[in-house]
Formats: sequence, C-alpha cells, structure tokens
Amino acid sequence: MTDPRLSIPPEQIETFSRRLLDLADESRRLVRTALARGFRTAIKPDQSLVTTVDTDVEQRLRVMLEEFFPEHGIVGEEFPALRPDADFQWIMDPIDGTEEFVHSIPTFGTIIGLYFRGMPVAGALDFPALDLRVHATLGLGCHRNGERVRLAHAPDARDRISLSARANFVRYRDDGAVFEAVTRACPNHRVYRTCLGHALAAVGAVNVMVNWHNKIWDLAAAQILTEEAGGSYVTVRELDLPGNGRIYSAVFGKPATVERMVKLVA
Amino acid sequence: MTDPRLSIPPEQIETFSRRLLDLADESRRLVRTALARGFRTAIKPDQSLVTTVDTDVEQRLRVMLEEFFPEHGIVGEEFPALRPDADFQWIMDPIDGTEEFVHSIPTFGTIIGLYFRGMPVAGALDFPALDLRVHATLGLGCHRNGERVRLAHAPDARDRISLSARANFVRYRDDGAVFEAVTRACPNHRVYRTCLGHALAAVGAVNVMVNWHNKIWDLAAAQILTEEAGGSYVTVRELDLPGNGRIYSAVFGKPATVERMVKLVA
Repeated sequence: MTDPRLSIPPEQIETFSRRLLDLADESRRLVRTALARGFRTAIKPDQSLVTTVDTDVEQRLRVMLEEFFPEHGIVGEEFPALRPDADFQWIMDPIDGTEEFVHSIPTFGTIIGLYFRGMPVAGALDFPALDLRVHATLGLGCHRNGERVRLAHAPDARDRISLSARANFVRYRDDGAVFEAVTRACPNHRVYRTCLGHALAAVGAVNVMVNWHNKIWDLAAAQILTEEAGGSYVTVRELDLPGNGRIYSAVFGKPATVERMVKLVA
Repeated sequence: MTDPRLSIPPEQIETFSRRLLDLADESRRLVRTALARGFRTAIKPDQSLVTTVDTDVEQRLRVMLEEFFPEHGIVGEEFPALRPDADFQWIMDPIDGTEEFVHSIPTFGTIIGLYFRGMPVAGALDFPALDLRVHATLGLGCHRNGERVRLAHAPDARDRISLSARANFVRYRDDGAVFEAVTRACPNHRVYRTCLGHALAAVGAVNVMVNWHNKIWDLAAAQILTEEAGGSYVTVRELDLPGNGRIYSAVFGKPATVERMVKLVA
C-alpha cells in the first residue's frame, strides 16, 4: 500500500510547516498574555479542569485555520469537530496539563498536529512557560527551538523513560498491571503531563514514552515528532468506547527501547 | 523539650534569610552562565551523572559561606563535610536533577538549607531555567518568587500528589510495595525530580510529596518550606547504611493528605 502522504506536493508541506508555526506562535502569545492578566477556571463534567484560556486559544486557532485552509477539518478538545470527512485534519489540545497551568507550574503545553488520510504530516508541542518548542514536518525533520533533533539509536545507560500516571492506565479499563510492569522494568521513570513526556521522548531526553489511554488530541504531534527525529512510534492499542470515542495507547522514542517496551506491554 | 531555635535572635534570622537569597542568586547566575556557555559531564562511581557545573556551584557557595559565617558547618553533595560539629549547618545540592540538566530539561534545581542543632531554619529551592524560586525562613513565611505562600488545609478534589520514582523506593531496600500502595491510592500522581516535587508540595500545586530514600541534601529545604507555608512534614523513616550515610524518607504537604499518606506508607 502506497503512503498517501507521497501525493502531497513538497511546496504544500512547506506551507503547512509555516502555518503550524504561526499557530504555535499565536497560542504562545495568548497563553502568556493570560498568565500575565489572569483567567477563570471551571470544572468539566468529567471532573477535569478547564479555563477560559483553553477555550480562547482553541477558538482563535480555529479562526486562523478557517482562513488558512477553509477546506481542512478541525478536531479540538473543547469544541465539536468540523468537516470530519476532509482529507486533511488539524487536531489540537490548546492546553495539555490544565491542572499544572492553574497552579502556575510551567510544565503545561499546547499540542497541534496535522493529519492526511490518517497519517501524520506536521506537529508541534509548545511550552509557553518553558520557552521550549518541538516541531516537525514530514521530510523536513524534527526541531527543538529551531535546532535539528536526531535521536541516538542506542538508549542511554540508565534507561530513563517517561510514562502516563497510573490514573491513565486504569481510567477506561484496568491496566494497572501494565503500569506496574513498566515501572518495575524501568524504575528510573518520570511522570509528567502528556505533552512534556512527548517532548522528552522526541528530543531523546528519555529513551521512551509509554503513553496510555489518551484521546486523539493528546497524541496529535507525537508520531511525526518521533519519526522525523529518527525514532519509532508504535500504537499498541486502540479502544472504541461509546461516549468517549477512540482511545489510543502508544509507545515511542529510541527504537531499541521502543521494541523492548512494546513486548513488555503486549 | 524547648525548641533550640527559640534561642536564635530574630535579627540573626533576618541575616540568614538575606544570605540564603545571596547564595541562591549566585547559584542561579552560575547555572545560567553554564547553560549558555556549555559544560562537561562525567559519570560518578554510583552511575549517576555529575557536571562541572555541580562542582563549580558548590565550590562557589562554599567560598561565600566561609566569608559570611566562618564558624558554620557545610554539607554538600560533591565535597566532604566541613565543621560537622558546628551548631549551624548549611546543606546543599548544587544541581538536583543532573540528568535533566544535561538534556536541557528545565526541571532541575538548586537546593540550599540551613539547620540549627538538627532543626531547619531556612531553605531555598531555585530553578534557574523556570524562573522559579521558593524560599522560607523560620517565622518569616514561605515565598514563591517573593510572594507569600499559604497552603490550603483542604486537599484539592482530584488529590494530586508527587512522589519519588520507583528507583528510589527500591535502591537501598526493596520498598516497591510502598511505591505500589501509594500509586494505587493516588493514581493522579506526578514523578518529577526531587526538587520540583518539593516545590510543588510547598506551594500547594500538589497535595503531598512522598519522598523516598534520599540523602540529607535532597531534603535540605523541604521541611522549613512546608512548615512555613502552613503544611506538615513527617519523617517516616531514617536508615543508617554503611557507606551511604543516613537515608531519609518523608511525607509533606497539606496536613490532611499528609496524615493519610503517613498511615498508608507505615
């Protein structure tokens, strides 16, 4: 089967890359302004937090996308999907780590990804309070603050990993045993929020990210970032849950560790 | 038994507070300069990393302390203890989270504490790459970037905690069962490096920090920060290990959660 992305003209991919950075610049500006001026917080029906910044950023990025690519679809955490049948789909989580954001813990970030017929084309993770951005576009490489990232294939000696919190492993079905197998096999682990864990795996600061039970917007940038950095990305499970949509689990990072972890969690 | 710290004159405590901030300012300056100019990395006999920045910062702080308080003792991670019988002891870890530091992951920090006859008098956690500092001095309160911190006594609804990685729980004796009990009871956990976990507990961004099997310099600031913020701090275990010195485990943060966690880990 031919990769459908081969049909995208190179100049179009360059346009996507520029627009991706425009979106990330704008979300960073809005988040920083909100941090300086203040914002309101509410609790969603699923008990997670949402702020006026989450909704403001997503609304603004949707307006920009409507101008840039009026025929593309849009999927975001805070509003209904738009043009779900379009070939190109922009997927975003305006603030991943809202709990950290409301406590001014700087590990939150914005996730933006572009997919073409289900395959990743571009992705960015932007951390407004860390002055950190990791972005990648198909064939153009993965960059950390503008500098090219190339993952070493050899895992580092201490085998550090990041993984989702146990709450993720048990929230749709009880995979507590997987959490325990991974933390036993790799005791030198970190548990950050999704987006920071993904950034660390993409730049090689951990050997692998074991990401469990997340929505599509949480993983919107992870695959293209990892693959363009020279790493590998494996979706280890997809669950279709009525009322929750499709839930993804994935393992990605340095190829040797990914291979070992995929066997472990299988 | 009277608290020995009551014998310290208030003006002396104010001097300690100013000098603590001088030390934190200087370590921040040195770390930021090193981040801009580069540094060398080596592997210690225990397989942990050390950089020229760890040793440079500790040496510089030792020189400053010799000038400020020539009769005080000094304990640091990288060099032998000085005047171990003095009443006042400055305790420091120049860079906690060296693994993060060498990968430019901004969650590393400097830990500085002052003890008087075994009781905490002042402490600071400084995060040069996060523009974050939490510091406290006896009776003068706990401050985050200069602003007073007061812990809410009621834990937040989602009961977020931070804890040490499993590697800590199993590194001197096998307390893997404690790690599993804590992560099961509080699945919405984070695992950062020591210093960031401590800062989050002191400012109330998590309900509690469960800190397992650490050296004295790792915990040098934690007790005074937590207590001056209005939280509680409980040492749950001390181990004396030949060749490793004394190893501490502690639970601290919002009083209601601390009480519950202390029962859980007992």
